[in-house]
Amino acid sequence: MLVNGKTSDSISVQDRGFNYGDGIFRTLLIRQGQPVQWQRHYLKLQHDCAAINLSCPPADTLLSDINSLNSTSTDGVVKIIITRGVGPRGYAITDSHSATRVVSISQLPSVDNCNYTSGIALHLCRLKLGHQPLLAGIKHLNRLENVLAATECLEAGTPEGLLEDLDEFVISGTRSNLFLIRDGTLYTPDLSRCGVAGVQRDRVMDWAKKHGVACKVTQIRSPELLLADEIFMVNSVFGLWPIGEMAGYKRSKHPISWKIQEWLNDENH
Amino acid sequence: MLVNGKTSDSISVQDRGFNYGDGIFRTLLIRQGQPVQWQRHYLKLQHDCAAINLSCPPADTLLSDINSLNSTSTDGVVKIIITRGVGPRGYAITDSHSATRVVSISQLPSVDNCNYTSGIALHLCRLKLGHQPLLAGIKHLNRLENVLAATECLEAGTPEGLLEDLDEFVISGTRSNLFLIRDGTLYTPDLSRCGVAGVQRDRVMDWAKKHGVACKVTQIRSPELLLADEIFMVNSVFGLWPIGEMAGYKRSKHPISWKIQEWLNDENH
Repeated sequence: MLVNGKTSDSISVQDRGFNYGDGIFRTLLIRQGQPVQWQRHYLKLQHDCAAINLSCPPADTLLSDINSLNSTSTDGVVKIIITRGVGPRGYAITDSHSATRVVSISQLPSVDNCNYTSGIALHLCRLKLGHQPLLAGIKHLNRLENVLAATECLEAGTPEGLLEDLDEFVISGTRSNLFLIRDGTLYTPDLSRCGVAGVQRDRVMDWAKKHGVACKVTQIRSPELLLADEIFMVNSVFGLWPIGEMAGYKRSKHPISWKIQEWLNDENH
Repeated sequence: MLVNGKTSDSISVQDRGFNYGDGIFRTLLIRQGQPVQWQRHYLKLQHDCAAINLSCPPADTLLSDINSLNSTSTDGVVKIIITRGVGPRGYAITDSHSATRVVSISQLPSVDNCNYTSGIALHLCRLKLGHQPLLAGIKHLNRLENVLAATECLEAGTPEGLLEDLDEFVISGTRSNLFLIRDGTLYTPDLSRCGVAGVQRDRVMDWAKKHGVACKVTQIRSPELLLADEIFMVNSVFGLWPIGEMAGYKRSKHPISWKIQEWLNDENH
């Protein structure tokens, strides 16, 4: 891994990413040495950095980091972390901070193929996401809610979980976005109060647009999920997993989800 | 500074404190080589670690770290960070994590004496705290809200800010707890949905108990502050600052606040 372009596996104890979670990150695939959907990921990185007034490194700098790590591996997962770096004590952002960037590549996680075909079981998380409109949609480093929710899923033995917010609206998975299909229309939760708006979510919306399928960003409650023809989760690493079962819901066929899955697998889209 | 008891100024890039803010911290005074209010701080540390299922190092281990850093300095600020350490990729907590502890000592910040006498000006922060009952009261490493709020104060030129929650209840300062005094009774915000319950807040409650003064933990709205006889902020580093002014509020005498301030300054209480 690289820290500010240099081979290193450590950062300063005084880094604000460590002290306050004061930073942004992204996780994306690399295939045959090339970052997948790079343009989209870089735009999100820029957007998220701007949301917390953090300077985003130039795309060329990050691509150069990725390339220099990439001599031996061809397929894997790239993680990019940008923090506000080291600065004087105290919460406030001052002019004296210089961003820290960390780029690392790890192996592709092994995934059961059934997750893609018959679909996964979804645990309904007890943890409910809190609201913070100023940080909603952003992939920042304050991820304790995700840590606690993902631990619930591990204990429940499911590969993902369903997260509602404190008002019991459906928001997302612990590391993925959610879509449901009903009567030929796609629905995905409004993320203006919490959740992370991922690249794969944007791509599903693009699929809908290009195929003349309506896609509505809206408030969804759990009981509405039970009426769905299909439900699926997406993220940039695993792609698309249909939901095979959750409490009160069981589906074995996922025709539209499978079509979108295939479309997403084509990196040119 | 020490990382797991060894002199170091760096931690692993894979530390979960850095990646997810998956940890707890405390900041306390050290005077003449002795950590101030250690018992209370250690109990909070234990409580907060338990809240996120993190193993807390023994008190002796932390005291030994503090002592070994303390040969040259006598007065200062100790910061203790406990994280879930390095583990496999992914949000979920697994059995394989081994906690990271970081102990550092820095100089006392210089403070304008007027903050203690005539009191400070308080900026009303635009940022409103989100709710997360599972993490409320806990001094965890997910502090982006505090970063953004403290930056507002820096820009406003005030030493502290007033934080409300999304429902517009008064919660705290950006790094301190709030009390108001009205007709001889103390009131402090309920922190069951957000905020950090600090050691100095507990000590003020103890003062009230020992002096036969009623102290109510309750929901407070900003307009109620304007009716207060006195308002003050407390934390473990600066002690007690009366509020001299905020929008619609101005007080120059703080008789009860000064009494409590004096009592808090006695480390035996």
